[in-house]
Amino acid sequence: METEHFSGILAPALTAFTEQFEIDTERTVAHFQWLLKQGCDALVVFGTTSEANSLSVAERTRFLEYAISNGLDPRNVLPGTGCCSLPDSVVLSKHAIGLECPGVLTLPPFYYKAVSDEGLFRYFATLIERVGDDRLRIYLYHIPPISQVAISFDLIERLIREFPGVVVGIKDSSGDWEHTQQLIDRFAPGGFRVFPGNEMHLLPALRTGGKGCISAFANINPAILQEVFQKWQRPEAENLQEEVERQGRAVRQYPVIPALKAILAESRKDPGWENIRPPLVPLSAAQREGLLAELGAATRQ
Amino acid sequence: METEHFSGILAPALTAFTEQFEIDTERTVAHFQWLLKQGCDALVVFGTTSEANSLSVAERTRFLEYAISNGLDPRNVLPGTGCCSLPDSVVLSKHAIGLECPGVLTLPPFYYKAVSDEGLFRYFATLIERVGDDRLRIYLYHIPPISQVAISFDLIERLIREFPGVVVGIKDSSGDWEHTQQLIDRFAPGGFRVFPGNEMHLLPALRTGGKGCISAFANINPAILQEVFQKWQRPEAENLQEEVERQGRAVRQYPVIPALKAILAESRKDPGWENIRPPLVPLSAAQREGLLAELGAATRQ
Repeated sequence: METEHFSGILAPALTAFTEQFEIDTERTVAHFQWLLKQGCDALVVFGTTSEANSLSVAERTRFLEYAISNGLDPRNVLPGTGCCSLPDSVVLSKHAIGLECPGVLTLPPFYYKAVSDEGLFRYFATLIERVGDDRLRIYLYHIPPISQVAISFDLIERLIREFPGVVVGIKDSSGDWEHTQQLIDRFAPGGFRVFPGNEMHLLPALRTGGKGCISAFANINPAILQEVFQKWQRPEAENLQEEVERQGRAVRQYPVIPALKAILAESRKDPGWENIRPPLVPLSAAQREGLLAELGAATRQ
Repeated sequence: METEHFSGILAPALTAFTEQFEIDTERTVAHFQWLLKQGCDALVVFGTTSEANSLSVAERTRFLEYAISNGLDPRNVLPGTGCCSLPDSVVLSKHAIGLECPGVLTLPPFYYKAVSDEGLFRYFATLIERVGDDRLRIYLYHIPPISQVAISFDLIERLIREFPGVVVGIKDSSGDWEHTQQLIDRFAPGGFRVFPGNEMHLLPALRTGGKGCISAFANINPAILQEVFQKWQRPEAENLQEEVERQGRAVRQYPVIPALKAILAESRKDPGWENIRPPLVPLSAAQREGLLAELGAATRQ
């Protein structure tokens, strides 16, 4: 990883919970260590996959402090900090930057729908002003299938123009390669860092000027993603990417977050990994069985 | 109003902000007093119209305490307490009940989409368990156009069955009269209190067993809604309801929250009422002019 900016394979790291739906801090930090050892360049703590928006602000700040004081290097962390409410996003962003995280991944406010670009611009501008820290680096988080509020090209252009060096990148979880490619074509030449939010688009993104990917899939097989990242200029990258896609497709037939948790529970012989905070629910036994069979079939021996 | 339950006209009360986007506590509480004086039976403090999900938990608890200590009778308040995160909803619900509010209006968790009824049931069941207060009365908040997460009939049935006397009503902001009517037909005979979230459906709801309405429109003309409520069994209710609909239609051509704020700013000669927290924005000058003209034309002289 470069000192100041993220690149490569980032995992939106899963959060483990106890049976009482409290963050299982120890199990989660052990997972972080595994992810970094297995090939993640950095971690998104508090992404969608982390069930971040099912956590309170206090849970998020306390847990990030816990993780760092238990060995997580903040320079490897891009925390999610975007909430519905401006003050919550300010508190989380300020906190993350204060802990020396090199950037934050920020959702647009997502309660109100059909909001204007002007309203979103005011939101981000006020956020930047209130954080009031030269170290702030914002990666925008575009995930319209879930947030239902999109970050338009016009908005990105305006934010980059008004806040150069502050609004520095984007996670594109549209799931739409055309959209990712357009983002790369339009903004990567100016230094904007584009990360598809889907492992399916890792190799195409690297070949056209993207910086890596931030994919839920990295929670279960970061090594193969790192291999694609290392070898993207070589012919063998094709086969690796195809295998990523086979595995990714097997997982994405199921609700992704409980599916990933079921895979970790199985591979670590640790059923506690299936705990998930409402409104999400674990996979059913039949789903779990189907997933593990299909993922096994999709994985090279 | 009955001692224990809400009925009649409830306003999801607007929140005033300063130019720096902080809650203008004094202006907001003055508005609460006006609403109650003008005919509201009770107030939803922290509804969608209140920009509640643009506020932090701390802002919400502090402001509710402020309002009560400045004369707002908690028995007239149904606070909105539903957030994306279970612990936030627990804190807000517990706080409201502790302050002697007779109930809370609770959104389903709205970040994750396509969640299961089982997941939503677990969410509400855990909320009720954690609040752990016999005084808790939950009014469900169904507003799929914004939350994008619906509260199904099956879920309502299960919640009523499992938590009789706790899950006692619903605000139906589907905007779909068929849906409201089905809710009334199915659940009102058992004592479940159904409030359409739209003034357009006030009279039809009262005639079929609904309890009143909780409508944004009540912020600007609670008196006429109260008149419909008082006279719903008399023939003149028809004309009153028609006037409500004419005025409501004039307002609903514009983004509703800034439109209502523009109307208050105009009628009170207080431009500060137009302040609105991002991501929402005030109406443009042209919108404001159009709105005031159309509302004027729709209002009886």
